[in-house]
Amino acid sequence: MTKPLVLFKPAPQLRERIFTEETWNRFNENFEVVDYEAHPDDEDFYRRLPDAFAVVGQPELQAESLHAAESLKAIVNVEGNFFPNIDYPTAFANGTRVLGCGTAYSQAVAEYSLALALDIARGVTREDHAARAGSEGIVSATTADSILFRGASVGLIGYGNLGRAFHTLLDPFHNEVRIHDPWLPQSIIRDTGAVPASLDETLAESDFVFVFATATADSEHLLNAEKLDLLKQGARLILVSRAAVVDYDALLERLQAGRFQAAIDVWPEEPLPKDDPFLSLKNVVVSAHRAGGIPQAFFSIGEMVCDDLELMRDGLPPARMQVAAPELVARYRNKPVG
Amino acid sequence: MTKPLVLFKPAPQLRERIFTEETWNRFNENFEVVDYEAHPDDEDFYRRLPDAFAVVGQPELQAESLHAAESLKAIVNVEGNFFPNIDYPTAFANGTRVLGCGTAYSQAVAEYSLALALDIARGVTREDHAARAGSEGIVSATTADSILFRGASVGLIGYGNLGRAFHTLLDPFHNEVRIHDPWLPQSIIRDTGAVPASLDETLAESDFVFVFATATADSEHLLNAEKLDLLKQGARLILVSRAAVVDYDALLERLQAGRFQAAIDVWPEEPLPKDDPFLSLKNVVVSAHRAGGIPQAFFSIGEMVCDDLELMRDGLPPARMQVAAPELVARYRNKPVG
Amino acid sequence: MTKPLVLFKPAPQLRERIFTEETWNRFNENFEVVDYEAHPDDEDFYRRLPDAFAVVGQPELQAESLHAAESLKAIVNVEGNFFPNIDYPTAFANGTRVLGCGTAYSQAVAEYSLALALDIARGVTREDHAARAGSEGIVSATTADSILFRGASVGLIGYGNLGRAFHTLLDPFHNEVRIHDPWLPQSIIRDTGAVPASLDETLAESDFVFVFATATADSEHLLNAEKLDLLKQGARLILVSRAAVVDYDALLERLQAGRFQAAIDVWPEEPLPKDDPFLSLKNVVVSAHRAGGIPQAFFSIGEMVCDDLELMRDGLPPARMQVAAPELVARYRNKPVG
Amino acid sequence: MTKPLVLFKPAPQLRERIFTEETWNRFNENFEVVDYEAHPDDEDFYRRLPDAFAVVGQPELQAESLHAAESLKAIVNVEGNFFPNIDYPTAFANGTRVLGCGTAYSQAVAEYSLALALDIARGVTREDHAARAGSEGIVSATTADSILFRGASVGLIGYGNLGRAFHTLLDPFHNEVRIHDPWLPQSIIRDTGAVPASLDETLAESDFVFVFATATADSEHLLNAEKLDLLKQGARLILVSRAAVVDYDALLERLQAGRFQAAIDVWPEEPLPKDDPFLSLKNVVVSAHRAGGIPQAFFSIGEMVCDDLELMRDGLPPARMQVAAPELVARYRNKPVG
Repeated sequence: MTKPLVLFKPAPQLRERIFTEETWNRFNENFEVVDYEAHPDDEDFYRRLPDAFAVVGQPELQAESLHAAESLKAIVNVEGNFFPNIDYPTAFANGTRVLGCGTAYSQAVAEYSLALALDIARGVTREDHAARAGSEGIVSATTADSILFRGASVGLIGYGNLGRAFHTLLDPFHNEVRIHDPWLPQSIIRDTGAVPASLDETLAESDFVFVFATATADSEHLLNAEKLDLLKQGARLILVSRAAVVDYDALLERLQAGRFQAAIDVWPEEPLPKDDPFLSLKNVVVSAHRAGGIPQAFFSIGEMVCDDLELMRDGLPPARMQVAAPELVARYRNKPVG
Repeated sequence: MTKPLVLFKPAPQLRERIFTEETWNRFNENFEVVDYEAHPDDEDFYRRLPDAFAVVGQPELQAESLHAAESLKAIVNVEGNFFPNIDYPTAFANGTRVLGCGTAYSQAVAEYSLALALDIARGVTREDHAARAGSEGIVSATTADSILFRGASVGLIGYGNLGRAFHTLLDPFHNEVRIHDPWLPQSIIRDTGAVPASLDETLAESDFVFVFATATADSEHLLNAEKLDLLKQGARLILVSRAAVVDYDALLERLQAGRFQAAIDVWPEEPLPKDDPFLSLKNVVVSAHRAGGIPQAFFSIGEMVCDDLELMRDGLPPARMQVAAPELVARYRNKPVG
Repeated sequence: MTKPLVLFKPAPQLRERIFTEETWNRFNENFEVVDYEAHPDDEDFYRRLPDAFAVVGQPELQAESLHAAESLKAIVNVEGNFFPNIDYPTAFANGTRVLGCGTAYSQAVAEYSLALALDIARGVTREDHAARAGSEGIVSATTADSILFRGASVGLIGYGNLGRAFHTLLDPFHNEVRIHDPWLPQSIIRDTGAVPASLDETLAESDFVFVFATATADSEHLLNAEKLDLLKQGARLILVSRAAVVDYDALLERLQAGRFQAAIDVWPEEPLPKDDPFLSLKNVVVSAHRAGGIPQAFFSIGEMVCDDLELMRDGLPPARMQVAAPELVARYRNKPVG
Repeated sequence: MTKPLVLFKPAPQLRERIFTEETWNRFNENFEVVDYEAHPDDEDFYRRLPDAFAVVGQPELQAESLHAAESLKAIVNVEGNFFPNIDYPTAFANGTRVLGCGTAYSQAVAEYSLALALDIARGVTREDHAARAGSEGIVSATTADSILFRGASVGLIGYGNLGRAFHTLLDPFHNEVRIHDPWLPQSIIRDTGAVPASLDETLAESDFVFVFATATADSEHLLNAEKLDLLKQGARLILVSRAAVVDYDALLERLQAGRFQAAIDVWPEEPLPKDDPFLSLKNVVVSAHRAGGIPQAFFSIGEMVCDDLELMRDGLPPARMQVAAPELVARYRNKPVG
């Protein structure tokens, strides 16, 4: 049996970041892999496309290229975001699936979100600073604003992969959970045991608010000054996805006024300017877009690619990666990680 | 019906720290409370003891006082540790229960332990420092040693209230959990789904090691140099209870050598000396005995006292506080919080 | 705004079984619904097809009809099984999704499977019979073969909707779970905390074996005499899906010999012949294809239809129903419920 | 080191029912066991009592015998109920613990209770009868009264060992849980995530009502005609503990009228008379006091005895068995299993 042809063109992703040697070997055992990272040659790439079973990467694929790609079963994004350089309608009409690796990061982001929430619930980072600076206070003063996560009210804004992965971590904490996601029917949220809620209710009633919303035209500055003012005095706000969703000027102003605490992983400008005023705030944990990109997450991408392409080679549907929905692929405006 | 007499002498605990106004009112509605914090008068205390239904606090109660205390049903410790200033055998022989409030802190300590573990799993505090210091690295460098908590091997040393409360938080993480507790039969540990293990195995096989052991003659410097050397390279060590269990000189040496990471909440000397060499380590999260003493934990003590004394008044056994075991009450050597 | 046109032709499903009055009203408020159950008229159906937004039901839709159906966004199966009366490739090429309601039954089947397993673990039905027949034994005799579910080894054959819904019910029982599903990569199974296993290992090592496999050419008589002989003496076998997967002659022989116990909900011939030899076995719980079809499950179908068609009307992907995978839709050989 | 002396007098319990050979050997290795089942000799028993470390069994122990038993650390009940043939105050004053093995049955009873609930939720036993009797109905008729357990409202009456063990099984079902237990403060119930409720509210608002109450003077006929009338039409009532708590005449009348369904494991007269009118009811699952007494439960008693006596020999408190509370030991009126 000849091996199916896979064109591998991962940029800006890196091969050695997403494939362990073991997974890379497995990949090459099961497929005839042409590696355009090792041997860049765009002309060759488009010449071979008509024979390809799959493209792994996010190269430009316009209608004319895709029309000729009659054997192409999958375009496998390994970066994490869908870009507008592919003519998705043509791909879908051809029966080519577009697969995304977003779920690779879900557990890492979920755990990081919990880490950030527990940190600002208890002042872990703030008081580590204080101790090192020689300003360790008496214990009861440093814990005066500490609160339990158990039993706290929790709001999730966005209930896609990230929100769902995070939600499973709440099981032991007996929270009252409100979820706002305008892309989902209320029944799905209710079925998880959570309460479907409007954005305003989610912001106003939650002790901890987690932002997991993806960036679209509709969600741009979803959390503006007016919405941020709905937060409870002393609330905890955890921002892990996406900067475009929040008005950072309004956010800064409220944090400077001590209205609430925040842990922030995404920023309008990355890396953060060295004089960014957020850097001097004590009621903020500063994180530099670190929630998802850890070694285990990256290496799971290579495994996902192997798992799903092997299933498809065997006439089965993919089982691990996200199948891009035609309706959504056009909406995302996420920025790639710098 | 006359109300049962309760002698309230909470020092070094404070009344307003453990009783909300609401709970204090409830307490006084149900009992005739003599408040020796408001009106210190030791002579009066011992004079009234023979008529007392309960003592709330940890005053000196020697055999001669207790012999006369024929109605005394409970000595209710509200500090968190049992002290040697009570003649426990006499109390037990009289049918007086000694109740402890240790469980009041369990959830707070459990959540804090998870906060610390997730912090050193992902470098939250370390990279917040780096960003503020203007030395923010590129993301993939700062996450190179980040690991998922899910699926990691976890070791618990000590499986009393703290260990158990913490264990429930592991449910969503699918860890392989080893537990070492020489005071428990293996069946109890196996029944939780965990693996009973020796101290050595727990240290050597766990990615995350949590120390929840209480301080006794047997556990003094349980984690000495030799034992610390069993930890995996890159392991995460979370110390929340008790400093006496660890040889801090040996610990410092290994942390300075970069052998593993640690988050430390208890210290041989508290508050920490300003020049303590632990304060300059990047692979440590420094915390100043902050794990348990938060407002919600303190106020639950007052509720526990009311709940259990009301049950006992009604001829029922206490249900919330810990009933001191004669065998253990003599063993504890815990230091009170400073 | 004109409402999208929906052609409703649910046979052999019934409208009043899957739509409450409330849901039916909601459906008609949001869509122009033409009800071919109330007014059967095939000619009219095919005449309107080119203008339809969705077809709800499983009528014949051959290539020529589908070619003209340019606005058709969804074919919504409300019966539970995909039939070969639709030209799926043409639908997919047109960008028409085929949606299935299989998940509507998942929770009902999962709970019923647990009910059956606990029944044969403890002899509930058998001893109810015995007591009514006046042959109530002494307790310790009737419980001699009773076993705990907690801690038992559990095997799942098939890990689709049913297997997954059932798996969540195992959380409190600390089982060792083996899963055999040849359509899934091992990583997915491992990620749930279960052990991916071969069919033989699953049968040989499990105290309880649950069959959730769908019927395909490959799975016909998957559990034949040889495989059934792998079961432990005294094992518990729970068959809820699908009769074609099992060789019932071989099964009967082994049950008559007392090799193991079984609870059976699916049968080669339904309804069961009155003289079926399975009916006289004491080590069997007999159930007449009752696992999924309960009122709450049926009515959730109507809700799913509304939820997903409303999402699609708003330019969003469906979120509740199963999107048929081209690879699988051709494989299923399930029989409709009689 | 001489082994501590243990006097073993298990009647009416049987040695071989509660000790596997392995556990029995372990017991004899660690203790000098005098076996009065093998060699009955009451005179010898009382003669050796002053030297005994523990008595395992529930023999008569009046004040005069106990006064002389100065070394006696434990009286270990292996039957499951505390009897009035022991002078408990004298034992407690001597520092002798009374240990009970009730928790040995908890998991078995919890699983059985869930089995019964799921059975009457779905008509498992009833329809097995119907199929064997040749009266198998069409599926939708037999499932017309079937309901999901998920999302149902659940009431627990009594929240001791049984109620708590059962409660853990509810985790996957997202129920609204009401708990009525007059021996507990509301805080304990709230802390589990359940709602503390009055008896009336628990009965009136629950789709499934589980009776786990122990029999005391206060709970005699707690569920009388008036209370049973509070149950919803079509409710499911699961009685596993204790017959004295329920007025069976009132219960019968309501079941005959089809007011609700029930699964009953405890009866005022055991074994059930062959002409008991409950035996002819279709809306009842009949069970003959089978919930707890299964081999794994019995054998765990022997293990518990070994575990706890070994701990106590080593100067540690017992960890597995229930320490009898002075307040409660006098209240129980449970009947031994026949």
